[in-house]
Amino acid sequence: MGLLNSISPRAIVASALLLSSLAHDVLARPSPEPKLRKGGPGKKKMAHNIKRAIEGERRAVETSCAETLLTTTTAPKPNPWAQLKDFETASVVEWLFAQEDLNLTISEDAGAWDNTIQLVEAMWPNKTDALAYLDGNATAPTKYAHVVLNNRATETPYYADILVGPLPVDNVTTAWEPLAYPYTKESGGQVRNLDADEDVLYSDWLYVHGASVADITLDLWNGTAMGLDNDTLDIWGIDPVWQEDGKIIRWDAFWNFPTGDFDSETLLPLGLYFMSDVTGRDPSKWKLEGWLYDNIFYATTEEFRTAYFGSCFKKHGANVDGDWAGSNQQGPILPMDNALPPIEVAPAGSRYAVDHEQNYVEWMDYSFYIGFTRDTGMALYDIRYKGERLLYELSLQEALAHYAGNDPMQSGTSYLDTFYGFGPYAFELVQGYDCPAYATYLNSSFYVAETSHTHISSICLFEYNTDYPIQRHTTGAYTSVTKNTYFVVRFVSTVGNYDYTFSYSFFIDGSIAVEVRASGYIQSAYFANNQDYGFQIHDFLSGSMHDHVLNFKADFDILGTSNSVQLMSLVPTSKVYPWSRGQARNTMALERTFIESEDESRFDWSPNTATQIIIVNEDEKNQYGEYRGYRVLPYTGTVHLTVKNSSNLVNSARWAEHDIQITKQKDTEPRAAHPYNSQDVADPPINFDKFFDGESLRNEDLVLWLNLGMHHVPHTGDLPNTVMTTAHTGIQFMPSNYFSIDQSRQTVNQVRILYADGKTTSVETFGQFNASSATCKPQYAPIEPNLAGYTGDIVVRKFPFDPNNPYFDTESIV
Amino acid sequence: MGLLNSISPRAIVASALLLSSLAHDVLARPSPEPKLRKGGPGKKKMAHNIKRAIEGERRAVETSCAETLLTTTTAPKPNPWAQLKDFETASVVEWLFAQEDLNLTISEDAGAWDNTIQLVEAMWPNKTDALAYLDGNATAPTKYAHVVLNNRATETPYYADILVGPLPVDNVTTAWEPLAYPYTKESGGQVRNLDADEDVLYSDWLYVHGASVADITLDLWNGTAMGLDNDTLDIWGIDPVWQEDGKIIRWDAFWNFPTGDFDSETLLPLGLYFMSDVTGRDPSKWKLEGWLYDNIFYATTEEFRTAYFGSCFKKHGANVDGDWAGSNQQGPILPMDNALPPIEVAPAGSRYAVDHEQNYVEWMDYSFYIGFTRDTGMALYDIRYKGERLLYELSLQEALAHYAGNDPMQSGTSYLDTFYGFGPYAFELVQGYDCPAYATYLNSSFYVAETSHTHISSICLFEYNTDYPIQRHTTGAYTSVTKNTYFVVRFVSTVGNYDYTFSYSFFIDGSIAVEVRASGYIQSAYFANNQDYGFQIHDFLSGSMHDHVLNFKADFDILGTSNSVQLMSLVPTSKVYPWSRGQARNTMALERTFIESEDESRFDWSPNTATQIIIVNEDEKNQYGEYRGYRVLPYTGTVHLTVKNSSNLVNSARWAEHDIQITKQKDTEPRAAHPYNSQDVADPPINFDKFFDGESLRNEDLVLWLNLGMHHVPHTGDLPNTVMTTAHTGIQFMPSNYFSIDQSRQTVNQVRILYADGKTTSVETFGQFNASSATCKPQYAPIEPNLAGYTGDIVVRKFPFDPNNPYFDTESIV
Repeated sequence: MGLLNSISPRAIVASALLLSSLAHDVLARPSPEPKLRKGGPGKKKMAHNIKRAIEGERRAVETSCAETLLTTTTAPKPNPWAQLKDFETASVVEWLFAQEDLNLTISEDAGAWDNTIQLVEAMWPNKTDALAYLDGNATAPTKYAHVVLNNRATETPYYADILVGPLPVDNVTTAWEPLAYPYTKESGGQVRNLDADEDVLYSDWLYVHGASVADITLDLWNGTAMGLDNDTLDIWGIDPVWQEDGKIIRWDAFWNFPTGDFDSETLLPLGLYFMSDVTGRDPSKWKLEGWLYDNIFYATTEEFRTAYFGSCFKKHGANVDGDWAGSNQQGPILPMDNALPPIEVAPAGSRYAVDHEQNYVEWMDYSFYIGFTRDTGMALYDIRYKGERLLYELSLQEALAHYAGNDPMQSGTSYLDTFYGFGPYAFELVQGYDCPAYATYLNSSFYVAETSHTHISSICLFEYNTDYPIQRHTTGAYTSVTKNTYFVVRFVSTVGNYDYTFSYSFFIDGSIAVEVRASGYIQSAYFANNQDYGFQIHDFLSGSMHDHVLNFKADFDILGTSNSVQLMSLVPTSKVYPWSRGQARNTMALERTFIESEDESRFDWSPNTATQIIIVNEDEKNQYGEYRGYRVLPYTGTVHLTVKNSSNLVNSARWAEHDIQITKQKDTEPRAAHPYNSQDVADPPINFDKFFDGESLRNEDLVLWLNLGMHHVPHTGDLPNTVMTTAHTGIQFMPSNYFSIDQSRQTVNQVRILYADGKTTSVETFGQFNASSATCKPQYAPIEPNLAGYTGDIVVRKFPFDPNNPYFDTESIV
Repeated sequence: MGLLNSISPRAIVASALLLSSLAHDVLARPSPEPKLRKGGPGKKKMAHNIKRAIEGERRAVETSCAETLLTTTTAPKPNPWAQLKDFETASVVEWLFAQEDLNLTISEDAGAWDNTIQLVEAMWPNKTDALAYLDGNATAPTKYAHVVLNNRATETPYYADILVGPLPVDNVTTAWEPLAYPYTKESGGQVRNLDADEDVLYSDWLYVHGASVADITLDLWNGTAMGLDNDTLDIWGIDPVWQEDGKIIRWDAFWNFPTGDFDSETLLPLGLYFMSDVTGRDPSKWKLEGWLYDNIFYATTEEFRTAYFGSCFKKHGANVDGDWAGSNQQGPILPMDNALPPIEVAPAGSRYAVDHEQNYVEWMDYSFYIGFTRDTGMALYDIRYKGERLLYELSLQEALAHYAGNDPMQSGTSYLDTFYGFGPYAFELVQGYDCPAYATYLNSSFYVAETSHTHISSICLFEYNTDYPIQRHTTGAYTSVTKNTYFVVRFVSTVGNYDYTFSYSFFIDGSIAVEVRASGYIQSAYFANNQDYGFQIHDFLSGSMHDHVLNFKADFDILGTSNSVQLMSLVPTSKVYPWSRGQARNTMALERTFIESEDESRFDWSPNTATQIIIVNEDEKNQYGEYRGYRVLPYTGTVHLTVKNSSNLVNSARWAEHDIQITKQKDTEPRAAHPYNSQDVADPPINFDKFFDGESLRNEDLVLWLNLGMHHVPHTGDLPNTVMTTAHTGIQFMPSNYFSIDQSRQTVNQVRILYADGKTTSVETFGQFNASSATCKPQYAPIEPNLAGYTGDIVVRKFPFDPNNPYFDTESIV
C-alpha cells in the first residue's frame, strides 16, 4: 500500500490498478524498445516536404497510398516540455540518495517513519524562458528535475516539492532547493501528509473497529472486515478527511467486496459508518467518535451494540454483487448486431507528421508539442495554426468529483483527482475501441518507487471524418459541400472507479474543441435516507449525486502575448430610429466591454449564452478595424460546482466555483491546483483565490482557467457503467475575425456540382485524390489490431542506472 | 414569380432555386421510377427474421457480407403519415377544379386576380385516431387532403386552409370544408395574403422607384435597378412587412447582383433603403414614404436627390462580388490534403431495415415512421424503443431568423421559414458529403402549381461510429470497452441563403439527439452605422447579428399517454446532520417538483444546468420506486430569442421566447406555427400563446415544444459560407430510470480484455463478427458515388391525370 498515500475508494481501486500494472510488468517480457508506430524518429523530414515527397515518389499503381506518406517530421526545436528520459530519472534518484541530509530510504524498504522519494519528473519551464527559447535565440531553458519528497521521519510528516538541477546531474553543479515560487502557501510546496500512517490505520485502527462489530456485521451481512484473507467486507472512507480545530477526523464506511470478476465494489455500500479522530501519529491516542446506521448516531460502540440487539433496531438489506454490476454483453443479440458495424478507415495512412523523439505533431496547418506529467497526464504546448501561436499551453489542471448525501461517506467525499494523478493511470488504449485502429499511438511514462514506467500506446493521434460536412450550399446552379475531416489527440486515464477520456480536436476552420467523457463505475450510496441526494437504482442502492468539475488552463497568445478579453453581449433593446416614424422598436443590439482587471474576471456563461467571450489583441485589428481574436464557448454542456463554499474543500478547489476565470499569466502561477491540496484544505499549497489580486487584464499575457463539468445524478442507466453518450462536457475555441475568410476553403476535400439546362455540367473536385488517376492504391481494409497483444506497462529502469543493462528486472520491486 | 408569395431575399433566392429545380426537371430525362436503393418494396421480410436470414443463408466464403443482409422490412401497419401518392394529388387537383364555386385558375394562366391552388398534401391524422389505429383495432384514419387555396380574385386576397375528402376522390362522397380546428385565429386557417400583387409590386412600384433614382444609383454604384436585362442592381426588402394601424408598410433595399457564379447576393448590400405604404391592391394608391441613406431619413425623393447632389452628402463604397464571396477551394494546398482522408465504410452493408413503401425504419431495437410535409420537411412518428413508444411525434415546427440592425432592412427582417417551406427545398443530398456514400437514400415529394415533384435521395439513413467508445473501464484485471455505433436519419433544406442540416440520431443506450447545423450564405448588412449590430467583415459589409430559433414538437408518450414533467434541481444547501456534530455543512441536495399546469410550463434551461427536466409516467414506477422516464437536456448550445416582444413578430412566433414549453396534447393544437403567420403578425392563424390556458399537466398526454437555436454574430470566418463546426445546436433525450440497467450492454460490439500474471489471458468478443471464421467477406472499399449523376428533382405529375402517361412534360409549366 506504500505507493499511494490515501485510503479511499480512489486509492484502493487505484492502488490495485497500479500494483496490478506493476505485477503485469513483472512477468511480461519487456520489449527492448518502446513500440513506436508508423516510422521511427530516425526518419526526419520537414512536413512541408511531405507533399513534394508524395508527388515525387509515386511509383507503380500497385503502391499503396499509405506507403507513399512519410509520417515523421522534425520539431523546429527540441521539446522543452519533454519528460525526463529513463536514465535522467535514474541519475536524479541516484543523486538524491547521495544527499545524506535528505535521509532517504528506498521505497520497498521504507516504513511509515522513513523519508522516500514520491516523484521525480521534469520541471516545467517558466513561460518566460520557454518563449525566449521558442521565439528568440535563447538556448533551451535550463533543465531541472521536479522532485516530491515524502518526509515521514518526523512527528509532522510532510510532502516537499524540491528542484534538483541543473541536469544532467553533475556532482559539482547539481544542487537541490525547495520549490516554492509556484505555490501560494507560505511554506511553498511543503504540505503535511495526512496519510503517512495509512498502513497502521488499517492494521491498528480500521480492522480493529471492524472486528469490534464483527457480531453485528456477521448478523447483518454474514461477513467481517478484520483484515483477514476471508474477509468479505471492506472499509474505506471520506476524502478529504475533516480538518477542523486542529483535529483530523475521518468517517469510514463498510462495503461488500465484489464476488465476481468485475470492479463493482463502489456499487456495494452497506450503510454502516464510523467516525474516528486520528489526529497525530500515535494510533493509541486515536479516538472512536461514534457510529451511524440508518441516520441514527451512536456515540460509542456499546451504545450502537445495545441498540442493534434491542427490539427496535431497523435492519436494511445489503448490496451484493451480481450480473447487474458486470459490464459484459447481456440480453438477446440485437437485430443484425453480429454483422460488422460501420468503421472509419484511413485508406491513405496518416496525413499528419509526428516527431516521435520530441512528441511534436503537425496536422494540416496546425502544430503542437505534447507534454506529460504525473499530476495531470497529457498537456499540449505551443499550439500553432497557420504559423502563429494560438495557445502557449492547453492542459488539464485538476478534476473534482464532489458528492453529497445524507450520510457522512457521500457528504464527505470530494475527490481531487490529481492527488492520485492522471499520468500513472493513463493505461494502454484499446486499439479500434478507444481510438481507431489506424491511429498513431505514443507512449507516456511515470515515476513509481525509484522506477520509471512506460505505458505504451497511451496517447493516440488520428484523423476522423464527422458524419456531416463542414460547409454546404445548394443553389439553382450548383451545390457546394466540404468534408469535415478533423484531428484528435487523446488520452484516457482511469482514476480508480472512473475512466476519463480527454480529447483535443482540431478543425479545418481553425476551431479547437476540448472534450471530456466519463465512463466506468459510479461511486454509489447506501439507499437509506438518501432520497434527497439521488435516485434509488438497485435493491439498497442510491446513485449518489455528484458534480464533476474539470479545470483546464488555456494560456492564449493571440498574435503575441499582449491580449485582452472582450465581452460582447446580445441584449434586448427598445429604440427609436431615424426611420421608425418616432416609434420605439423592440429589437436587440450588441454591447461590448473589456474585462479590465482580475477584480471582474471570475464569471459564468451568461443566461441564454448571450455573451461572447473573445480573446483579442487590441493592437492587431484586421483590415476592417475589428480585433483579430479567438472566441471561447461551451460546446457540450459545461457546469461549475453546485456547492457554495464547500465544507469538504474549504480553499482547496476555489477554481471550481465559476465557469470562466481569467488571470494575468505569471511564472509564479503556472497551475490552478496542487496535487496535495487535499492535505490542508484551509491552507492548501495552491489556493486559486490568491491568483486574483486586482491586476490589469488589458493588453497583458492572459490565462483562461476554464471549467468543464457535468452534474451527475446517477440513474439505473449508469449501471453497470456510466455511458459516454450523455456523460460528456466540452468547450470550443473558434476564430473571431482572426482570418479574412473561413479557413476551411483551403481544403481540396470539397466538391462543387454545377448544373445548367437540366444537366449536371461539371463536378469540380479541386485536385482531391482521384483513385482512377492516382499512382497509388488506397487501402480500405482496416488494420486488425491484435488485442491479445494488449500489454499495459513496459520498461522499468531503476537506480542504480546501468547503461549496459538498462532494463531492470521489476520482480524485486513490488 | 408566381410560385412563392413574397419578396424577400429568402423568396428571391428560394424562387430561383425552385424555378431552377423546375427548369432542371424540364430537360432532365425523368426516371421512370424513384430510385430506391438497397432493395425495393417488393422484398418484404420482418426485421426479426433478418438475423436468421443472415445465419441461414450464408454461402461460400466469397459471399460479401453486404449481400447476406436483407435490408427491407414491412411496417406493422401502413404509414398513416404517408405523403399523397402522385395520382392522389392529381385526383384531388382534378376534383378541386371541378368545384365551380372555388373559381380556380391553373397556375400558369393565373394573374394576380385569380384563385389558385397553393398546396395539396395529405392531411395529418389526429393523434386520437392514429393511436386507435396503431395501438388498437381501429381502421386507418380516414384519409383527407389538406389543401391551401390562394384566393386572389377579391379586394381582400387570402389564403384558405381547406380539407378535401374522404379520399380516394369520389364525386359522390368527397367534399371540401374549411379547415379551422387546428388554428387559434377566429377565422381558422383563413388569413390575408400580403403578397397577392407581388408581380405588380416589382413592375409598377419597386422598379419605378429604382428608376426614379437611377441618376443616383449610377453615380453611386454605376448601376440601375429598373427591371431591365442589364440591371446590375436588385431590390428587395423586409419580411414580414410592417402591419400597423391598418396599413401595410414595406422597406426595400438595394443590393448588387453577383458578378460571378456564386450565390453571394446576400453579401452585397448597398446601404440605400426606401419605405412604401403598399396598403390595398391598387398600386396607384401606394405611397412612397421616404428614403434612408447613412442613417439620414429623407421624406421624399426630391429631398433625397437634393441632399445627394448637395455638397455635404457623404458617399460610401459598394460591396462587390469577388473571390471572397465564392466557396471554391482557395489558397495553397494543405500538407498531405490531396491524399485521401479517413472515411467511414459499411463493410457489411446496412444493419437496419426499411419499408420503402411505407417509409418505416427499424434499427436495432428502434423503429419509426417518416412523414414529410411542405411546411416543415421530414418528421418522425411513433418512435419506439424496445417495443414501447417513446414519442408519438418528433418534428420541426418553425424556424425563425430574427435580425437586428441600425437600418430598417436588417431591423425589419424576421424570417419565419415555413412560409417558404422546408419540404420543397429539401434537395438531393450529395452522397459521400452530406451523408456517407453507403447511406440509404429516400425520396420526398412536394406540390407546386398542380404538379407533384419528387426530390430523389433527399432523406438519408445510415449507421456511423463515433471516434470514441460509449463505455469503457480499466482495472488491474481487465479492460472493458464498447463501440458507440449510432443511427442517423437526416435531411437538408436550403431555404434561400441558408442550408439547414437536420439530424436525428439514435444511440444504443436509448438516448436520442436532435441536431441542426447551419451553413450557406449569411444575410449581411451594409456597414454604415451598424457597429452596434455586428462586426465589419468586408469592405463595406457588416455581419448582421441574428438569432436562429427552431422549434421542435416532441410529443412524448412514456409508457402510455398519461405523463407528467418532473423538475429535479441540484441546489446548494447548508444543513446540520445527526452525524455532523451540530455543525451545518455546506453541501448540496436535490429538490423535486412537478409542473402542475400550463400556467407554469414555459421556462428556460436553468443557470448552470442545475435542473433536470424528466418526462415520467407517475403510474409506472420501477422496482425501486422511481419513476420511469426520459430526460430532456441541451446537447450542443441551444438558445431562445434575445428580442423581447419583437416589433417584427408581434404574436406570430411566441414559441420563440423560452427554451422549453409544455402543453397538454390536443388534436386542435397539432402545430406551434402556421406557414402564413407572417401575413397577420398581430392575429396569426396560430398564436402559440393561446395554447397556454391553465390546463393541468399532471398525468396527461403532454407535448414538449423545444427550441434549438444559435445566436449568430457573423465574423469574417462566416465568409463565404457559415461553417457547421460552430453553427450547430442540439437537444438530447436520455432514459431516466427507464430501464433497469444501461441498454448498451446488449451490443456484441464490445470487447473485454482480461489479464493476469502479466499476460493477456483472454479477449472476450461476445459473438461479434469475426472475419476469420465468418462465411462472408466484409467489403471495406466504399461505394464510389457518381456525383455526375446528381439530378435534383424527378417525376412531375399533373392534372389531368392520365394513368397511361403519368409523367408530365414539365416544359410548359415554367
